[in-house]
Amino acid sequence: MFENANNRTELSQLGEFGLINHIAKAVELKNPESVKGIGDDAAVINANGNQVVVTTDMLVEGVHFDLVYCPLKHLGYKSIVVNLSDVYAMNAQPKQVVVAMAVSNRFSLEAIEELYAGILMACKHYGVDLVGGDTTSSQSGLVLSITAIGAAKEENIVYRNGAKENDLICVTGDLGAAYMGLQLLKREKQVFLENPNVQPDFEGNDYLLERQLKPEAQDETIRILSEVGVKPTSMIDISDGLASEIMHICTQSDKGCLIYESKLPIDEKTYEQARAFNLDPTVCAMNGGEDYELLFTISLADYEKIRSRADISIIGHITAASEGYYMLDKSDHRVELKAQGWDAMKPNV
Amino acid sequence: MFENANNRTELSQLGEFGLINHIAKAVELKNPESVKGIGDDAAVINANGNQVVVTTDMLVEGVHFDLVYCPLKHLGYKSIVVNLSDVYAMNAQPKQVVVAMAVSNRFSLEAIEELYAGILMACKHYGVDLVGGDTTSSQSGLVLSITAIGAAKEENIVYRNGAKENDLICVTGDLGAAYMGLQLLKREKQVFLENPNVQPDFEGNDYLLERQLKPEAQDETIRILSEVGVKPTSMIDISDGLASEIMHICTQSDKGCLIYESKLPIDEKTYEQARAFNLDPTVCAMNGGEDYELLFTISLADYEKIRSRADISIIGHITAASEGYYMLDKSDHRVELKAQGWDAMKPNV
Repeated sequence: MFENANNRTELSQLGEFGLINHIAKAVELKNPESVKGIGDDAAVINANGNQVVVTTDMLVEGVHFDLVYCPLKHLGYKSIVVNLSDVYAMNAQPKQVVVAMAVSNRFSLEAIEELYAGILMACKHYGVDLVGGDTTSSQSGLVLSITAIGAAKEENIVYRNGAKENDLICVTGDLGAAYMGLQLLKREKQVFLENPNVQPDFEGNDYLLERQLKPEAQDETIRILSEVGVKPTSMIDISDGLASEIMHICTQSDKGCLIYESKLPIDEKTYEQARAFNLDPTVCAMNGGEDYELLFTISLADYEKIRSRADISIIGHITAASEGYYMLDKSDHRVELKAQGWDAMKPNV
Repeated sequence: MFENANNRTELSQLGEFGLINHIAKAVELKNPESVKGIGDDAAVINANGNQVVVTTDMLVEGVHFDLVYCPLKHLGYKSIVVNLSDVYAMNAQPKQVVVAMAVSNRFSLEAIEELYAGILMACKHYGVDLVGGDTTSSQSGLVLSITAIGAAKEENIVYRNGAKENDLICVTGDLGAAYMGLQLLKREKQVFLENPNVQPDFEGNDYLLERQLKPEAQDETIRILSEVGVKPTSMIDISDGLASEIMHICTQSDKGCLIYESKLPIDEKTYEQARAFNLDPTVCAMNGGEDYELLFTISLADYEKIRSRADISIIGHITAASEGYYMLDKSDHRVELKAQGWDAMKPNV
C-alpha cells in the first residue's frame, strides 16, 4: 500500500497537505453512497437522493489555541464555527454535530461547562443539534475533535473543482483581521508574562479580537446566494489563508487565477495594526488564515446578481491552468502566489 | 445553562458517564431530522426516510493505548473496529469513516503509513470508505478521533431503551479475553522495562492477545439476526464491560435484569490466565471491557430462532425495574451488579 517503510521521513517535510495527499492516494471508495471522499471541505454521502455532508476538525491545545488568551467559552463556540464553515463551503445546511473531547485533570467540571456553554451557544445560533460525542481523559492538554453533518439537495452541492475560465473570484467579508487579532493577543501575552501587573492593551481593537476569538460562519452568504439564484461554480472556506485556498480551487479545477491586490477586502483596523506590527496588510490578508469567510467562483453571467452586495467582493478571475496563479499588485506587477498559509502541522500559538 | 460556575468540581468525581449525563441535560434537539441524540451507541439522523447513524470515538496515547505493546498497524485497525462496533450496535450497516489525528514530531511518515495501513485494512474488511479527516500536530502523543457513519432502514434501528420484561439477554462470542490480553501485555512490558534482554513470553496466548490488539466487530451477528428474522428489542456493544452495558440497557429501558453466572461465555484461555493472575474469571468477563461483542435482548417468542447459534449465548433475562440488577452466582446467591467497568476517564494502560 505504502512504499519505503524502512526509511524515516519527517512529517514536517510533507506538511499537512502533503500528508493528506499521500494518504488520499492509498484510498479507494467502494460504496456507491460515498459520493465524494478526501479532498474537499467535506465528504459527501448519498442518502436516498439527498446528500449528507460530513466534515471533521481537530483542535489541539498548544497548537490551535492557547488558553492563556482564549476563554473556554469562546473556544467552544469557535470549535463549532470552524466545522460549520466547512459545511457552508459545500453550499449545504449544517444540521448536527458530534463532539469528541480529551481532557486532563487540570480541568474542572466548571471549566468543561464553560466549554460546552460556548459549544451549545454556537449550536443554537446556527440551528444545529449536538447529537453525540465521546469524552475521555488526556495526559496533557485539551483536545477537541468535532464532526459536523449537513444536508443539501444533490444539485446544490458546490465542490472545489468546478471553476471555469473567466469565472469571477469572490470573497465574503474582509480578510486578515483574525490574524491581526492573534498578533495582538500574542503581544499582550508576552507583556503579561514579563509583568503580570500590566493590564492588557486592546483598546479600539475589539473587531480584530472578535475575528480571532469568536469568528462566525457564513450562513448568511449561503442564504443570499440561494435567494439571488446564484450557484457558485466552486467554493471553499478560508481557514488557511486566501492564497492557499484559491490554489486549492485552481489545482482541483485545473485552472489558473489572477487576483487584484487593490480589490482585496481589508478592514481599516487590520491595515492600522498591520502597520503597527510592521507587517504587510496584503500578506496578512493573503496568508493570515482563520478568516472563515467563503471564497467562491461564479459564472460571468451571474455578475449582475451579486455586484451590489456590499458583503461580497470580486477580487479577480479564473484563467487557464497554463497562466499559473498570480496577483496583480498595486503597482501593476504580476506576483506569483505562494501558499504560505497557516499550516496546521506547525504550532501557531 | 449550567449552575454553580464558581465552584471547582473534579471531573473524577463524576466519571465519564456522569459527565456525559451532565452535558446531555443541557442539550435539546431542535432539527426534525435529529432522531436520536446523546445516550445510545450512535446518534440517528433522518435522511429522506432512511436513517443515518453517526458515532465518534477518541483514542488517546497513554490513556487508551500504549505504543510499547500496541503496534501502529493494530492500533489503526482497532480504532476503526471500535467505531464500527457502535454502528452494528444500532443494527445498522457502517458505510463511511472520517479520521482526525493529532500527531507529534516523534512520528515519522512511515509510522503514520503503518497506522493508515491498519485503518485501511479494517475499512476493506468491513466494506467502509475512508471519506475524510483532519491531520494536525500534537505537542505530546498521538490522538485519534474517528467518526463512523452507517445506514439503516428506520424500522431496523435498535436502541438501548426497548428491553421488555421477560426478554432474553443474549451476548455474542466470549467475554474477558481482551482484558486478559491486556494483563499479559502489561506484565511483559514490566519484565521488559526491568530487563530489555528478556524476550516476551506470550506462548499459547495468541487468542487473548488478538482479542486485545486486533478485535473484530460483529458484522456477522447483524447479518445472522437479519437472516433468521430477529430484531432485538435493545442492543449495545460491549466496550466498557458486560455489567456496565447491561445496566445501560436496563436504565434506559426502565427495567431490571437477572444474569446467570454459569451462562457467561468465557474462553478456556481466559479462565486459565485469570487464575494465573489470581483474578476472578467472572469479574474479568463482567467488568474487563473491550470485548466489542454485542449484548442484546430478544423477545421470548424469538428464542427458537437463535437457540442453536453457537456464537450467541443466552445469559439471563430482563425483569421489572423494581427487581434491580442482579447476577445469580454459581452457588445460587444473588449478587447485585455494579458497573465497575472500564472507565475511559481513568488511564488504563
